[in-house]
Formats: sequence, structure tokens, C-alpha cells
Amino acid sequence: MKEYPLGKAFMLIEPGPVVMVTSAGQEHPNVATITWTTVLDWSPRLALCTGPWNYTVKALLETKECVISIPTVELAKKVVSVGTCSSKDVDKFKKFGLTAEAAAEIGAPLIKECYANIECRVIDHIEKYNIIVLEGVKAWVDGSTEHPKFMHAVGDGHFTVDGETLDLREYMPNKLPPGV
Amino acid sequence: MKEYPLGKAFMLIEPGPVVMVTSAGQEHPNVATITWTTVLDWSPRLALCTGPWNYTVKALLETKECVISIPTVELAKKVVSVGTCSSKDVDKFKKFGLTAEAAAEIGAPLIKECYANIECRVIDHIEKYNIIVLEGVKAWVDGSTEHPKFMHAVGDGHFTVDGETLDLREYMPNKLPPGV
Repeated sequence: MKEYPLGKAFMLIEPGPVVMVTSAGQEHPNVATITWTTVLDWSPRLALCTGPWNYTVKALLETKECVISIPTVELAKKVVSVGTCSSKDVDKFKKFGLTAEAAAEIGAPLIKECYANIECRVIDHIEKYNIIVLEGVKAWVDGSTEHPKFMHAVGDGHFTVDGETLDLREYMPNKLPPGV
Repeated sequence: MKEYPLGKAFMLIEPGPVVMVTSAGQEHPNVATITWTTVLDWSPRLALCTGPWNYTVKALLETKECVISIPTVELAKKVVSVGTCSSKDVDKFKKFGLTAEAAAEIGAPLIKECYANIECRVIDHIEKYNIIVLEGVKAWVDGSTEHPKFMHAVGDGHFTVDGETLDLREYMPNKLPPGV
């Protein structure tokens, strides 16, 4: 994994990919699959939305740290399976053959098999809507994958996969944030 | 446009497509392009994130109503162009050849050319993070388009387009919400 500019890390979340979220645990690290996320600004601040029933998220709120890991479609079945059981009951890294690697700034682990990993601190929790506000502090990408294809949850068990890419920069010159 | 079950409307937003947002205006309706959205629950409650500089969003906060319109890739250039100017200065429906149609429950217009339209009420505004919380009250889809391809903003002027669809329902039987 090579370091990725933090000022561009919002670009990993803006397209709306399915992500996995890790948090530190006592016996083993926790990991959950999350499909409700959004960028909040370019800092980057991000939000993820999920309820208190999620054990990984509960741990994330206690430790105030997590990693947002972004898988490519090759991991699709594992990503979905990670979402069907609880880290309270099982070491999902071991069960699904995922590799936890030490992060640089926080205690939650990176997932080696994912294309990108964003180390985040939890900066707020809007309980009324189950919104957790995160701030990215370091980002990593797999430098060996040139054209990663991400997956997007439809919500009914179907997932769309990235197809072609359009370059529409010339139509929005006044809307490109600095540095991208 | 045919009515779409409100209990499934979250499925139009969960994949993370670029959307257009409309609000009612005095001289003409307003429309803006928004790329930071998330589902909050299955009701559906949705969130969009953008700042007070956005004229359409300012009007939306005043009228407490908006439509979330979801375009397919065929509209890509118009969608991007809608995002580069302000409804304060121009009638973007006229300028970009979009058709405003009356909604059923609210004063903001549907966009006829979009695959889907969700009529929403504004139920909260979390100013600290520029998060606007919406509740869908009626949803519509274009019944004539069988395989709509949506676009996802990367944030740097590139957009990924939906490619293949994976059916992974069998891997997540315990995670499918009722009715989908």
C-alpha cells in the first residue's frame, strides 16, 4: 500500500462504493460492511450511517477510531458475507481470509486486500439519525491496481459494478476543487 | 412516469448516483446537481450535504420541499452543466432543455427526463455539517427504461457509469429488508 494524498481521499467515497469499516477489539479486530456513507467536505470529513446494533460501530464509538476500507469487485462475496454476521461472535478477518495490517495513526486495522484504506477519527455522533461523523487522518491505496472496479449496493441484494469512466472535466472547470 | 413504492425508494439512492435536486422558485423552478448524498433509513429518510452558497438548496430550506431526481448517463453533460451555474441567475430548465412537471405532494417540480424522481419534505437541517435531512413522500420512475445506467461522481470531473449487476441475494438472506 502506498500513501494517498489526504486531500484527495474524498474521491474514494464520493462515488458511493460499498465499504468495510474496521475498529479495534479486545480479542480480535472488528469489521462490518456499510453501504450508507457520504462525503461531508474535502478535508476530508465523511459520514457513515448505521444503527447501534452494529457491534463494529459500537466499538468504533468507544475507541473513537476506525478505518474505512474500499474493496474492489473481486472481493464481492466476502464483502457481503462480512455483512451477515457480527464481530461480537466471530473473528471475521480469520473467517473470511482478510488480513489486518497496522495503521499508522490509529489502533483500528487496515484491510490488506482492499484497494483503499482511510484511517479516520470519530469526531461526532448525531444519535437522532445514527450519523457518525469521521475525519480522515491518513489514506492508502494499492499502487499495483490501475483500474479498480468498485461495487455499489442497490439495497436488495443486487450490486452494480463500475463500468466505463467518463471524463467531463471540460464541462465543469469552475467546479473542480483545488489539487484534484 | 409511474409511481414507485416508497418503501423501495432508498434503493434509488443507496448506490450513490449523481442526483439533481429541484426546489420551487418565484420566477422559475430551481435545480442543482448534488453528489454528496446518503440513505439514512428505509422510511425513506435521506441526507444531502451541500453548503448555503447553493441557491437551490437555500430555496429548498425556505420552502421545506424538494425533489431528488436521478438521471441516467444519457443526461451526463446536462447534469454536469447544471452544476456549473446558479438558478439565481438563469432558468436552468430552459437553458438545458429539461422539463419541469408538477409533483403530486409538493411544490417543487419533477424532472421529466430523469429516470426517477423522489418527492421529499425537508425535516431537519444539521447546520454544523451542512447536512439536510429529507423524508421521501412519493416516488416515481420511468417505466419504459429497463436497465438504467446511473453515473457516480469521482469528484475530479470523472464519472464512473454503472456496468454489470451482481445478484448476491443468496449470500445475505438475513440482511434483506422486508419487501425488497
